[in-house]
Amino acid sequence: MENKLDKLNIVGIAGSLRKGSYNRMLLEAAKEIATDSMTIEEFDLSGIPMYNTDVEKSAVPEIVTEFKEKIRAADGLLISTPEYNYSVPGVLKNAIDWASRMPKDTPLHQKPVAMMGGSGGISGTIRAQGHLRQILAHSNMLDLKKPEVLVTKIQEKFDGNGVLTDDALKQHLIRFLAAFENWIRIFKK
Amino acid sequence: MENKLDKLNIVGIAGSLRKGSYNRMLLEAAKEIATDSMTIEEFDLSGIPMYNTDVEKSAVPEIVTEFKEKIRAADGLLISTPEYNYSVPGVLKNAIDWASRMPKDTPLHQKPVAMMGGSGGISGTIRAQGHLRQILAHSNMLDLKKPEVLVTKIQEKFDGNGVLTDDALKQHLIRFLAAFENWIRIFKK
Repeated sequence: MENKLDKLNIVGIAGSLRKGSYNRMLLEAAKEIATDSMTIEEFDLSGIPMYNTDVEKSAVPEIVTEFKEKIRAADGLLISTPEYNYSVPGVLKNAIDWASRMPKDTPLHQKPVAMMGGSGGISGTIRAQGHLRQILAHSNMLDLKKPEVLVTKIQEKFDGNGVLTDDALKQHLIRFLAAFENWIRIFKK
Repeated sequence: MENKLDKLNIVGIAGSLRKGSYNRMLLEAAKEIATDSMTIEEFDLSGIPMYNTDVEKSAVPEIVTEFKEKIRAADGLLISTPEYNYSVPGVLKNAIDWASRMPKDTPLHQKPVAMMGGSGGISGTIRAQGHLRQILAHSNMLDLKKPEVLVTKIQEKFDGNGVLTDDALKQHLIRFLAAFENWIRIFKK
């Protein structure tokens, strides 16, 4: 039987590779907020090579195997992503492409997932998240629908040290992570 | 004044990196068919690294600069892509992410573009092409709407040497490329 007090184990990924990424700050903020209910461990996508079926068939890169096993062992996946060209970054899509292979082996199948994103303007990554939900549906992932985390003017929400200073966003993340926890526990019963 | 008989210069890209890619065969078939009206030169995406703003700010990779300049000098872009996870491959999206930078410098702005794709089953990359049109809209690219090239059971359309053997598809590609040529010449006038 599932012990309701067990902490959940979440893999977190950021869709941007740059060091000062606001979406990584958002993931860090979620990690801090979630400490009582879940442990969020970030997996850095920067070492994942371009997906190539020939490479996959000869030898799956070690980092890809590690990425897939981390997700397999986790209770859920948390994605924090910027929006590039009205969609998800190629970097994030490429990591999903690797993880989605093969149909009988993918750790994405029926894995709970939640998404967040922030932009410098007013879109809040709304188009990217629309695409992302469609992409994740291919692997039958269980995506938390609400509340959505669509952060506008994200650069105004953090201080120079990358610490979340916007209280409304902090309260929203608390509600979001509580909803994600409840969502995951439905499927763990 | 534009000479109507000048051959058009097209950059072709395939969204799959594997050697035996059917979508590269499709691009090759288009190249053969188009000889009278346009020259299609393939640009291989396999050397393009993951997009990273930090890398871009310190030094844009040479291959990215080359990719952007090839597109800038071309009359149009022809994309042949498989569908991964109901969307475009991360490999293709990543190349577009690089090429779309920066707003005042991107060669994608108002560049004519046409897309093709094939799948092993019945989808014919229909979802991927839907996403791709939305992605290209960010750079205000001029996408040919019809005819669409959505190839089902693509493995049955080529022989063991990668040569297009399906006459219906060949005739369709002839119409498609003629429409692409007309589309490009509208904007060259």
